[in-house]
Amino acid sequence: MNTSPTLTGRRFEVRYRIRAATLDAAREAAAALALEQSVEVPMDAVFDEGVRDHIVGRVISVEPSAERRFTAADGRFDVRVALATDTTGDDVAQTVNMLFGNSSLLDHVELVDADLPDSLVRACGGPRFGIEGLRRLTGATGRALTCAALKPQGLPVEELARLCHTFAANGIDIIKDDHGISDQHYSPFLARVRACQREIERAGKETGRRALYAPSLVGSPKALYERAKILRDEGVGAALVAPVLIGLPVFQELVAEHLNVPVLAHPAYAGAARVAPPFLLGRLFRLLGADAVIYPHFGGRFAYSEATCRDIAQTARSAWGNAHATLSVRSSLPVPAGGMSVDRVRELVDFYGRDVMLLIGGSLLRSGPQLPERTREFVRNVAAASEGVPA
Amino acid sequence: MNTSPTLTGRRFEVRYRIRAATLDAAREAAAALALEQSVEVPMDAVFDEGVRDHIVGRVISVEPSAERRFTAADGRFDVRVALATDTTGDDVAQTVNMLFGNSSLLDHVELVDADLPDSLVRACGGPRFGIEGLRRLTGATGRALTCAALKPQGLPVEELARLCHTFAANGIDIIKDDHGISDQHYSPFLARVRACQREIERAGKETGRRALYAPSLVGSPKALYERAKILRDEGVGAALVAPVLIGLPVFQELVAEHLNVPVLAHPAYAGAARVAPPFLLGRLFRLLGADAVIYPHFGGRFAYSEATCRDIAQTARSAWGNAHATLSVRSSLPVPAGGMSVDRVRELVDFYGRDVMLLIGGSLLRSGPQLPERTREFVRNVAAASEGVPA
Repeated sequence: MNTSPTLTGRRFEVRYRIRAATLDAAREAAAALALEQSVEVPMDAVFDEGVRDHIVGRVISVEPSAERRFTAADGRFDVRVALATDTTGDDVAQTVNMLFGNSSLLDHVELVDADLPDSLVRACGGPRFGIEGLRRLTGATGRALTCAALKPQGLPVEELARLCHTFAANGIDIIKDDHGISDQHYSPFLARVRACQREIERAGKETGRRALYAPSLVGSPKALYERAKILRDEGVGAALVAPVLIGLPVFQELVAEHLNVPVLAHPAYAGAARVAPPFLLGRLFRLLGADAVIYPHFGGRFAYSEATCRDIAQTARSAWGNAHATLSVRSSLPVPAGGMSVDRVRELVDFYGRDVMLLIGGSLLRSGPQLPERTREFVRNVAAASEGVPA
Repeated sequence: MNTSPTLTGRRFEVRYRIRAATLDAAREAAAALALEQSVEVPMDAVFDEGVRDHIVGRVISVEPSAERRFTAADGRFDVRVALATDTTGDDVAQTVNMLFGNSSLLDHVELVDADLPDSLVRACGGPRFGIEGLRRLTGATGRALTCAALKPQGLPVEELARLCHTFAANGIDIIKDDHGISDQHYSPFLARVRACQREIERAGKETGRRALYAPSLVGSPKALYERAKILRDEGVGAALVAPVLIGLPVFQELVAEHLNVPVLAHPAYAGAARVAPPFLLGRLFRLLGADAVIYPHFGGRFAYSEATCRDIAQTARSAWGNAHATLSVRSSLPVPAGGMSVDRVRELVDFYGRDVMLLIGGSLLRSGPQLPERTREFVRNVAAASEGVPA
């Protein structure tokens, strides 16, 4: 019986890591995984030939993990599965569903990477500005960019606006809300955005430089879309959004249909421990439209390794990596953060090159009355460290 | 300096589990966690008294984990933190941000539970139907409910509709789409929903019983809201939604503003390994409006333990557990699934009692031409197993 003659038969490759005691056990787990991420029934419940041939996931290979950090005793296997492109419907939520919906509930499986279907890539489109756009809008050429954060939350609007002016007047390129600042009664969204944007513009007139203010958008779709309108109405230059917190599909729709400015993606609630950060932050956030991607740099207060940080930056900046793609997807700007300080500027620029934005938050703010001087030092150090460093 | 005289000072308790070598190390990690989940700067960067007193998270206690599965050598500590209610803004996304935004990126921290603020509970409201509503709408009283799934995906609309009729005509209470069925070209949403709903109604006329069809809603907000309208237009009786896949805040808005029928929550992509499933599925999904909560029962093809399953059911069904709450939040119906079979019906009803819905998917479908008989056996077994079993 073949009741579905219209299936295209197109496939895309997804890579998982499986923990298993033996190669045989890994093969068995891989076969179960391929069913779980496609038809979700045992093979003997698939009576339709078309479904069996063109919908059921297919294991391409199962091999002991080549990653250096694993030894044979760790029992880690790299699994490649070919999923049917038809099952994704070129929709973000549904693609994530097919990549890792049920298997996210399996302790022994990690989603490592995927050659996302070209049709999905076309439907999403990636960053609208990317690294070049961010450089053009801020006027930052030939050096790494700088970013600072308005915090702590709880401060009233006037205090946040004052901080915003200090950062802008002293040379910071992008000034973002702390991601914890949303629409609380102590700093309501509309009043805050108006006041901070006014200070950005005032500083611009004083210095002749253009900084961008990136307010934090957190909420349900209705609130997000209303706030995006406020950004447009007030002429705000950027936005900060945590894609996992609001939902990956919402992020994509928000960026594509409601925002006309660069978007910084924040990793809040992205710690689904078994999706590899380079894929989630570097590839998926980028595909969905993040112009810059914030993530915790190693040696700060978070747990990412040096290799993970290098991979995130590489994935965010490199040419789009689909095997057959002739697609052009702009690069995202890596934004290492999470406990960085002015003392680490040279090390960071040496590690990432010039196509990076350094984000320093609490470490600047603790300087209290010395904030203007400390901010200028940050800006100077970034410019100096960037000299002679390749992009 | 105290620039924020309007802070309410209200707090709510959040419980985490921390992995640390010693009690001292755990105390240090807890202090860092309280900062991370509130102001996100070191304490010496907080110059405002109001913020220090009423916004900064406070550690209530740090104790070696009392959970039986841990020994002292495991180095697990239970940490209670009081967060400021003001920081949540009574918004779903922002509350999740404050509960576990940045800390989701810390390998050594797990979110275990929280006494969600009454104001948030009031804003969300919980299930609109709950267990009683599901019983009323299906006519299933004095016994566990039954659920079956339309799959595998890839089948055309007519095949899915035929399955739907078979299940409805043979006594299943709720027939849901496989969560992988979305709006693919082989079974487009509108055509599928119309055809399946027609079969549900035809079976109803034949049997005099009312079954509910729960189509799967997957997509970005615009698509979700359009499809919710189709459900209303077509008189469909229920909906299946994966809250984490579409985004928790979207789920809440979808249920509250766009759906007028019971909602089954699916756990796809909910495997953020370090949010305790009873909190995420049992409490949070329920609060956001899930009338029934699907999850993998132990002994199937997923990894949840017996204790986790018992806790999910308990959290979903018990009186709402806020310490100070005089709030009434309806119960959610637990729906154990994930590789269940007709042979396990009695065991499942004995384990959960009668306030449960048993979901059997692939194991029914593999019976092929015997599907009607096998479905009737499932329905009969559930009724028999429910006799004399307390709710």
